[in-house]
Amino acid sequence: MATPTDAETVARLLDTFNREYHTPTPGPEILTARLQNLLAGADVIAFLAGDPAIAVVLLTLRPNVWCDGPIALVEELYVAPQARGRGIGSALLAAVESITRERGGQLIEIAVDGADRDAHRFYESHGYTTTDAGQDQPSFYYHRSV
Amino acid sequence: MATPTDAETVARLLDTFNREYHTPTPGPEILTARLQNLLAGADVIAFLAGDPAIAVVLLTLRPNVWCDGPIALVEELYVAPQARGRGIGSALLAAVESITRERGGQLIEIAVDGADRDAHRFYESHGYTTTDAGQDQPSFYYHRSV
Repeated sequence: MATPTDAETVARLLDTFNREYHTPTPGPEILTARLQNLLAGADVIAFLAGDPAIAVVLLTLRPNVWCDGPIALVEELYVAPQARGRGIGSALLAAVESITRERGGQLIEIAVDGADRDAHRFYESHGYTTTDAGQDQPSFYYHRSV
Repeated sequence: MATPTDAETVARLLDTFNREYHTPTPGPEILTARLQNLLAGADVIAFLAGDPAIAVVLLTLRPNVWCDGPIALVEELYVAPQARGRGIGSALLAAVESITRERGGQLIEIAVDGADRDAHRFYESHGYTTTDAGQDQPSFYYHRSV
């Protein structure tokens, strides 16, 4: 589990993640500063894999009304290209599941791009679903900038 | 905006919401107790509409690494059947947008059941989308119990 002293390492991986997928990033310096604050709290958690680190998962825990424990949301999961296919993503997801249980949570969520078929296969193979019991259509993730 | 003293009102509406959609609920007493705690903090917010209240929106704000402000997640939005079609849901969504801006946030998210076409139309008509710029396929909301 990453501590605030790992902020630069987490930042570098997240910055590389977004650059690989052509998504905007404020750059590693700004990310590092934010992560130093975020990782000092209890509700933003990161796990790193490898030494030097070649993979990261970032999750948030938030309170909710339907059960006593928090809901975990996988915000980011990245394995560097040269390290893929070795089960590192699965290990990071297992860490997310462990910390969620440890904190009393019962539910893990993640929003996945429709075009990212590899991610769909990955999460489905780990027991994640887009449908609730009795539903036959997937749940969609909507968003809006304000 | 609901205060902890409104916990019972919020709880009653959320309980009615889940019963209408045949979703499990722990019942209004347990929900009230949780909401008394949750609404006392800064990161779980509810707005009520009507007197007596006939609609509620519940949202969470969580920190994130990509921008300085929080991300808002609409957890629940319910308008009682007899009060629908009068713009109350739109007013509650406007309140979510206002508080998000006020807290420095730039993004609002919501997961919507695939079969709930009314909700799709509602959020799309308010500027919400399932696709990012440059994408042609909707984002999916995955989850797993642990």
